[in-house]
Amino acid sequence: MQNEPTCQYGMHRYNHPASMPGEFDFISWIRAQSPNHPRVLLPQGDDLAVLKWDTSDLLIIGVDQVLDTVHFDSSIHPPREIGRKVMNRNLSDCAAMACLPAGAVTTAALPKGTPFDYAKEVYLGMKDAGEKFDCPIVGGDTATWEGKLVLTLTILGRSAGVEPVTRRGAKVGDSIFVTGPLGGSLLGRHMNFVPRVHEARAIAAAGVSAMIDISDGLSRDLRHICEQSGVGAIVDATSIPIHEDAVTMSRRDGRSPLEHALHDGEDHELLFTSSVGHPSYVRIGRIVSDPGIFIEAGDKREPLEPRGWQHTF
Amino acid sequence: MQNEPTCQYGMHRYNHPASMPGEFDFISWIRAQSPNHPRVLLPQGDDLAVLKWDTSDLLIIGVDQVLDTVHFDSSIHPPREIGRKVMNRNLSDCAAMACLPAGAVTTAALPKGTPFDYAKEVYLGMKDAGEKFDCPIVGGDTATWEGKLVLTLTILGRSAGVEPVTRRGAKVGDSIFVTGPLGGSLLGRHMNFVPRVHEARAIAAAGVSAMIDISDGLSRDLRHICEQSGVGAIVDATSIPIHEDAVTMSRRDGRSPLEHALHDGEDHELLFTSSVGHPSYVRIGRIVSDPGIFIEAGDKREPLEPRGWQHTF
Repeated sequence: MQNEPTCQYGMHRYNHPASMPGEFDFISWIRAQSPNHPRVLLPQGDDLAVLKWDTSDLLIIGVDQVLDTVHFDSSIHPPREIGRKVMNRNLSDCAAMACLPAGAVTTAALPKGTPFDYAKEVYLGMKDAGEKFDCPIVGGDTATWEGKLVLTLTILGRSAGVEPVTRRGAKVGDSIFVTGPLGGSLLGRHMNFVPRVHEARAIAAAGVSAMIDISDGLSRDLRHICEQSGVGAIVDATSIPIHEDAVTMSRRDGRSPLEHALHDGEDHELLFTSSVGHPSYVRIGRIVSDPGIFIEAGDKREPLEPRGWQHTF
Repeated sequence: MQNEPTCQYGMHRYNHPASMPGEFDFISWIRAQSPNHPRVLLPQGDDLAVLKWDTSDLLIIGVDQVLDTVHFDSSIHPPREIGRKVMNRNLSDCAAMACLPAGAVTTAALPKGTPFDYAKEVYLGMKDAGEKFDCPIVGGDTATWEGKLVLTLTILGRSAGVEPVTRRGAKVGDSIFVTGPLGGSLLGRHMNFVPRVHEARAIAAAGVSAMIDISDGLSRDLRHICEQSGVGAIVDATSIPIHEDAVTMSRRDGRSPLEHALHDGEDHELLFTSSVGHPSYVRIGRIVSDPGIFIEAGDKREPLEPRGWQHTF
């Protein structure tokens, strides 16, 4: 986050109205934002929302949270970006399964004294990001507390004619692909990535055996695929697409651009395996039967240890 | 929370192991807890979980969060109770719609240094409470941070042959009922209530026009029904069932037991309207056409103002 302007977008920019509205005013405002949607029979505003579910669809569900100082910094990032990030992280999970987003519910734990307009901006960030992929927000829960901002978003996906793509299906001999250049997302892309929802559907149509979105870092996410598929992998160091942000970060911290591309998290590109070619994407390696993940460069082969992000207790 | 032992169950009781496990160890442990369930085609451990959805079921969804110092106090309440509370709040929302729980996803933002065993206890509290109502946890997201404990839980409900009961259907002439005595839940019941899932199904089978669970307080939750139904209500003060906890709290704070029963939140009894009799439950008033909510005692009638819990910005 180093090259972003500090404090320009912090909470102090939002004026407190003379009379603070409460939770129910915010909820009323949110309800007015809810568009009519053919899947939504009863929108937020009751105890729960009611959706119509197409009889042929599998139901896909997951949840992601973003925490101030961990996944974003409220003193740096504008509230609309923060809201967008939590929606996009979940949309990216839908992409990883090659399903279509169907709807979302969300929670906000707002610091006491959060201006109404700030809360609205967070919500609009989520809403706008969702609408780009036909994903209405259908319910939520808001509270205020003495702590920092916490947002969570639960996403529903629908299979819509495509079998969900898991992490379990990688086969010996498959190629490994990524959908875009990696590394250095902390310079800003982690707040502004585009979830690969449409790309995933095309990948699944062409042929895919396993898929994940790169959130913990290539080295760690490839391990998830290999462990769950019971296979190993050999990655070609020279083929890894390196983002220019990785080069920029390398200049600052002395770690090589490749290191950043291999281990940085929150790229949210898709990492997938396939027995067929995918000319639009970069082939970075192959699936092998021997367990373990190795990286090759010329004659050298060494274990690729996961060094991506892991929360520690 | 006044009469509960302080600090007996706080985080310090849990020993830190010599080597702190990280997020992935906790996730591995969680996966091992996930039971096989006929609705779950792919359990947590992939990007998202995949559920089979019965073709005749409407999909009902909502989310609730609990925040340390707002909805519970980690220095007082044991972690298993905290986990149970977030599940039970959501199960109570299912009850309010008369749907059957179908599954849940959850997030935990854990304070850095949270012992592994403490995190497990929180999870087991959610899991055990869910299993009582056939509600498996199918996915989740865990992170650690410098803040206090935040749990969220998103619940899926299925209509299972019963039209979801909303807040919108109250009709002039309907009676108003509650399923149990009210007030003083802060003495401990707010952590230990039983969600009225089964009662709700029986109520719906007998005949119900609108329903809500009492989370914000009777005065406020009855208002939700009246506003959304476009009706008014007259409550009979002498018929309100008063919990003995309301009497205990009255002795401490000088507010009358009736005040506690009318305005305290987190009772999680059901408040419903019906044109038919419900001999198992207490009739507390009637729906009228004139807007506004009034409380009668003998010859006296006065407006019943909402004084329940509202988070303020």
